[in-house]
Amino acid sequence: MTTTPSSRPTGTSAESDALRALYADWSDIIAGTPDLTMRLFRSIFDEWHQPTREPEDVTYREETVGGVPGIWTLPIGADPTKVLLYTHGGGFAVGSASSHRKLAAHVAKALGVTAFVLDYRRAPEHPHPAQVEDGVAAFTALTERGIAPADITTIGDSAGGNLAVAIPLALRERGGPLPGRIVAFSPWLDMENAGGTLVTNDATDALITVPLLEGMIAGVLAEGRIDPRTPLANPLHADLTGLPPLYVNAGSAESLVDNATRLAERARAAGVDVTLSVAEGMQHVFPFLAGSAPEADEEIAAIAKWFRG
Amino acid sequence: MTTTPSSRPTGTSAESDALRALYADWSDIIAGTPDLTMRLFRSIFDEWHQPTREPEDVTYREETVGGVPGIWTLPIGADPTKVLLYTHGGGFAVGSASSHRKLAAHVAKALGVTAFVLDYRRAPEHPHPAQVEDGVAAFTALTERGIAPADITTIGDSAGGNLAVAIPLALRERGGPLPGRIVAFSPWLDMENAGGTLVTNDATDALITVPLLEGMIAGVLAEGRIDPRTPLANPLHADLTGLPPLYVNAGSAESLVDNATRLAERARAAGVDVTLSVAEGMQHVFPFLAGSAPEADEEIAAIAKWFRG
Repeated sequence: MTTTPSSRPTGTSAESDALRALYADWSDIIAGTPDLTMRLFRSIFDEWHQPTREPEDVTYREETVGGVPGIWTLPIGADPTKVLLYTHGGGFAVGSASSHRKLAAHVAKALGVTAFVLDYRRAPEHPHPAQVEDGVAAFTALTERGIAPADITTIGDSAGGNLAVAIPLALRERGGPLPGRIVAFSPWLDMENAGGTLVTNDATDALITVPLLEGMIAGVLAEGRIDPRTPLANPLHADLTGLPPLYVNAGSAESLVDNATRLAERARAAGVDVTLSVAEGMQHVFPFLAGSAPEADEEIAAIAKWFRG
Repeated sequence: MTTTPSSRPTGTSAESDALRALYADWSDIIAGTPDLTMRLFRSIFDEWHQPTREPEDVTYREETVGGVPGIWTLPIGADPTKVLLYTHGGGFAVGSASSHRKLAAHVAKALGVTAFVLDYRRAPEHPHPAQVEDGVAAFTALTERGIAPADITTIGDSAGGNLAVAIPLALRERGGPLPGRIVAFSPWLDMENAGGTLVTNDATDALITVPLLEGMIAGVLAEGRIDPRTPLANPLHADLTGLPPLYVNAGSAESLVDNATRLAERARAAGVDVTLSVAEGMQHVFPFLAGSAPEADEEIAAIAKWFRG
C-alpha cells in the first residue's frame, strides 16, 4: 500500500532520521504481522518515546486528576500555576502518558510551566467521546484546584492534537471557560480519511497509511456507528469561532500535513489567532525528536516564543 | 509447559498482583505467538517499567560512560559521589535502561545516591562477555572521573543481577579495585538451566520457564560455543573469595529462587558478608513494584538500611 521511504530527505539533520527509522521499523512489523493484536500494537507504540532524549532537570509525579490517571512533568523552577494539559497521540487507541512523558517534559521545560499527560480511556474499548470527556474532566478538576482556565494550554499530537482542539470545543458547548491557548502537533482530525496528502505524501510518510487510519477510525467511531463528521470527533467540521490562540504544526513529508493546514485555514476563517508551522521534510509528530535533533528543538523554541509573546 | 498462576498467593498485597498479571500477560503472548520475533520480545519487555510508579523528586540525564550509553537517575539531594552501577535484567537480550529507569531511581533515592543504568550490548547480537566488558568499562570510567571504587555499588536484576556479580569478578581478574557493595535482585546465574526450583516453582512462577531460559542461554552463550560453567557467565561456578558485601534477594514463588539461595551459600562459604532476603509469595524481580506495593518498598527500605549500616 505504501512504500516506506528508505532514506531521509535532503536538508534534514542526520539526527532527525531516528524518527523516520522507528516508523519504518513499525511499518515493517505491521506489514509483516497481518494478525498483529491491539495488545502488541500498543506495545510497539509505547516505544514512541525512544527518539526523545531524557530532558534534564525535570521530575515526575503520577496522579489522578478529575478521575483521569496521568503523569505530571515538573521542570525544576517551572511556574506551578501554568499547566499544559497534554493528550497523547496514537489513533485514540495506542500511546500513553508513558510514551509521551519525555516529549511533554521538553515542551513544559521550554515554556517554563508544568504539564499533566493524561492516560485517557482508549478506543476501541472506549469509543468517542470518552477521550474528550476525560480531557474535559481533567481540565475542570485543574480549575477547581485553582488553576486559572487561561493558564491552561490544551496540547497534544496526532489524535491527541485532535483532542487538544475538541476539549475546548466541548468546554465551549457546556458554557464553561476555555483554555488560554491550544497547541496541536501534527493533528489528526479527518475522520473521513479523505485528505489529499494521504495520497500525495504516501511515498514520503514512513508511518501513516489509509488502511492504518481506517482501523483507528473504526475503533474510535464504534465501527461506523458514529458519524465521521461529528464535530467533536472531527474538528474540521466544527465551528471554531471563539477558540483561543492556536499553534499548529506538521512535517511536510507526512500524509496528515493537510489536516494541519486545513485546521489553520478554518480557524483563521473563524477569526482565531493561528500560527502554522510546517517543517520541511519532517515526519509525523517530529517534536518527538526533542533533545535529539535540531528541527524539534527549534520548533519547541518557536512555541516557547509564541507562548510568551 | 507451565501453568500460569491465576491468582496472587494468600498474604501478599493486592497491589503486588500487578507484576504477576504483567508476567501472565507476557506468558500468554509468548505461548500464543510461536513465531514471536526478538524485535517484539524486546518491545513487550520494555513494558517492564509499568508496575513501577514514577518516583518523585528524581531527574534524569542520558550520557555515555566508558563508551556505554545509559541513563543517570539523579534524586534531588543525592550524594553525587556515590553511584549505583545498574545492569538491567532481561536474559542479556531484552530490557533496557528505559525499562529499568524508574526501578533504579527508586533504589537510588532510598539510598541517597545516584544511579547509572547501562544500555549494555545485548545478546544474541553480542554474546558473552560483551555485557561484562561493558560493565567493566563503565565502572572504570566512573573511577577515572574520581568516583572512589568503594563508593560504587554494582546492582542489577535477573541477568543484570548476574552481571552485578560478574563485573566485580572481572575487575578482580584484572587486578583492579572492586566496588564497595553488590546488590542482586532475583539474579539469574545458572546457565546450566538445572536448578531444582525451575521444577518445584514452575506452577507459581508467572514468567520464567525452562524453554524461555533455554532461548536466552543460546543467545548469550553463542549457541553453545561458550561453556555454561564459564565463571564470568555463571558466577555459581566462580571463586567468590574477596567479593564485597552482597545483598541478594528473590521471591519465594519464582523458579529462579534457588539461584539467589545458591549464590548466598557459595558466597558465605567463600567468606563474603552476605545478606539474603526471600520475600514470601513474590515473583521474579519484585522490586519492580516500587512505589506501588508494600513488599517492594519494604525491601528497598531494608536495602537502604543495609547500605547505610
